[in-house]
Amino acid sequence: MHAFTNIKKAITISDAFWNVTTEAGLANIVSRNLGDGRHQAVETGHSFVNMSSYSYLGLDSHPGILQAAADAVLNTGSLNTTVSRIRVQFDILKDAEDALADLVEAEVVTLPSCAAAAAAALPLLASGALTGGTPPRLLFDKNAHFCLNLMKPVCADETEVSTIGHNDLSALEDACKAGGPVAYVADSVYSTGGRAPIRDLLFLQERYGLFLLFDEAHGLSTLGRHGRGPVLDALDGINDRTLIITSLNKGFGASGGAVFIGRRHDRRRRELATRFGGPVTWSQRINVAGLGAIIKSVDIHRSDELHVLQERLQDNIRLFDRLVPTATAGDGLPIRFISIGDEDGTVRLAQSFLAEGFYTSAVFFPVIARGRAGLRIMIRANMTAGDIERFAAHLKDVRTVGTEAGHV
Amino acid sequence: MHAFTNIKKAITISDAFWNVTTEAGLANIVSRNLGDGRHQAVETGHSFVNMSSYSYLGLDSHPGILQAAADAVLNTGSLNTTVSRIRVQFDILKDAEDALADLVEAEVVTLPSCAAAAAAALPLLASGALTGGTPPRLLFDKNAHFCLNLMKPVCADETEVSTIGHNDLSALEDACKAGGPVAYVADSVYSTGGRAPIRDLLFLQERYGLFLLFDEAHGLSTLGRHGRGPVLDALDGINDRTLIITSLNKGFGASGGAVFIGRRHDRRRRELATRFGGPVTWSQRINVAGLGAIIKSVDIHRSDELHVLQERLQDNIRLFDRLVPTATAGDGLPIRFISIGDEDGTVRLAQSFLAEGFYTSAVFFPVIARGRAGLRIMIRANMTAGDIERFAAHLKDVRTVGTEAGHV
Repeated sequence: MHAFTNIKKAITISDAFWNVTTEAGLANIVSRNLGDGRHQAVETGHSFVNMSSYSYLGLDSHPGILQAAADAVLNTGSLNTTVSRIRVQFDILKDAEDALADLVEAEVVTLPSCAAAAAAALPLLASGALTGGTPPRLLFDKNAHFCLNLMKPVCADETEVSTIGHNDLSALEDACKAGGPVAYVADSVYSTGGRAPIRDLLFLQERYGLFLLFDEAHGLSTLGRHGRGPVLDALDGINDRTLIITSLNKGFGASGGAVFIGRRHDRRRRELATRFGGPVTWSQRINVAGLGAIIKSVDIHRSDELHVLQERLQDNIRLFDRLVPTATAGDGLPIRFISIGDEDGTVRLAQSFLAEGFYTSAVFFPVIARGRAGLRIMIRANMTAGDIERFAAHLKDVRTVGTEAGHV
Repeated sequence: MHAFTNIKKAITISDAFWNVTTEAGLANIVSRNLGDGRHQAVETGHSFVNMSSYSYLGLDSHPGILQAAADAVLNTGSLNTTVSRIRVQFDILKDAEDALADLVEAEVVTLPSCAAAAAAALPLLASGALTGGTPPRLLFDKNAHFCLNLMKPVCADETEVSTIGHNDLSALEDACKAGGPVAYVADSVYSTGGRAPIRDLLFLQERYGLFLLFDEAHGLSTLGRHGRGPVLDALDGINDRTLIITSLNKGFGASGGAVFIGRRHDRRRRELATRFGGPVTWSQRINVAGLGAIIKSVDIHRSDELHVLQERLQDNIRLFDRLVPTATAGDGLPIRFISIGDEDGTVRLAQSFLAEGFYTSAVFFPVIARGRAGLRIMIRANMTAGDIERFAAHLKDVRTVGTEAGHV
């Protein structure tokens, strides 16, 4: 018991902190969407820029995607099929998966969320069905996303599961040397910043046959040719020892999640996912609004528009890095962490940013270790230079005052 | 290991059968939606009535719901918020949850699927957070839905988990008598037919404080005043020892799932779900198309239209029962199981029905025990009497021929 989770302990530790955050007006903000990452709080009428939006390319506001989503509902005449997809599926589901599969040159199965994709893929991997019948020992990176970690006990009922240090290549290599199949479970781009050492991992894969399962939720669209994400960008096409799960809701601008389950047209991998992939077989599909959005977003990913948006994002990241020094400045990722340390100080800073018209995410335990609190900032292609400059100026003002008063 | 799952074994046992089903043309049928539970296969142009649709009231084809879904996308201007809901949420999410909460007179938290609702609710229950800090022993009904069973290992990391016989009230009472909090996890209406003995369970709740978690996926909309489902219909308002998870995609005609987490306006229960409810806190929300559909579907549930649709459904169930005798005839539920036994014979029968224009679900291990195969039929309000009569006539024809030849 409590080998992997301890919810009661988590409640004891972080409940008070959420109380503080809520009382500070930084939680449960109900807002109208003003588009392009801008919101207006319903209760106060206060407008703000979302500085913590994972729509890195701004595709959540793309008129073409929205129109495609609405059209898909009216043209299909139903929000979803009303039977398991392994029995009868709408043509729009096949069209969306085919479009996505052609984009990423891999066999793709979609699910209602990235978490559902994890629930489909991880137990299948743990069972040995993807490693020639022998269950691999599963090594989770200690910073792997919650949706991966939730499945640890489920995987531990199929194989040996352990957790290793963040990006700990030597622990991984030791496990590989011990023999038998080994699989590493990690994010490609971490939601609190930083990335997996993908090239080093591929080296271990080549050398020892290491299986890799990556959560590409923050990498897809944002990075890589046609937005295929850093993992596929590093690979020469997906291989039989790499599995990718991702969100289609974040950078991608649609809804749901996906598993890149194997090589394009690998019928056996597809069968394993659609017959034995847990929620794939018995839970609902992405609704047709989401499927219409996926098809349109794939079109955008194939066009020059994507490249332009990726460039705009990189320009904004560079501008931010020039004005706001952080530990990961210059890494080309859109996620920055402004380190504060003290949890109360972090909340006060977020509050003052909100008053200035910027919503920032105060991040703290259990998301990260205690005493390491800070603001998580996410840069978008559709931020203006003026937004970033005003944000940086306010941070500088607060820090000057804070230093004088002995805070921040 | 393999205390709860064994995917490799499941693959070994049921893979061949899925091969047969696929070769028989009964799996992966890609179709155009013709509305009202009718489809046209893209490859062959063959049209058929879906006799295995869980849209019991036909709300999947409701023009008002479809329009509301499309409007919600264009009016909101984004398919989803791009940050955790505990931080910033769109007003339409609050509106949808409030509408649903008022309908069912319970505090409601929505998620992208019923499976996600199970992933949110079950570990929280297992941790003891809903039972005064003491983790309850969790007893799962052996026929509980896959989405509940998937979470068994996760719950077993928080508390003691076991599986009891189907509707086994005496095993439950014994567990209650042994002392300490006990929670029972079950479907209210089972996807293969039959229901939980809700009144008896409520008696155990009153007598011993038994906690009840029901999956209402097949009960919501279909049954009860304003379609609130059989559990809320039996209760005088939800209580602190009952949790309901449900799909909003099946009878309800929208998308996603929900947890009825506590009494209306129980702020603490809501906090526990939004702060510590797993995917509620870190996974995506129902997209705005689904939220718009929920709001419209609630309106329909409050109107006379729902009553009319429920009556039509009951008329069709009665007609079906008159023409096709099954073990559960007369129970008022829309799910019927035509028992065949032999798995190959079941597939051949389903094939012959499809040729006649009826898609039926051939059901077999691992969904039910080996040698107990049959066709799962789901009745809808928007079937015509002619459909049901033609279906029954074909079954009679096949059975006559089959009996003469020693089959079926």
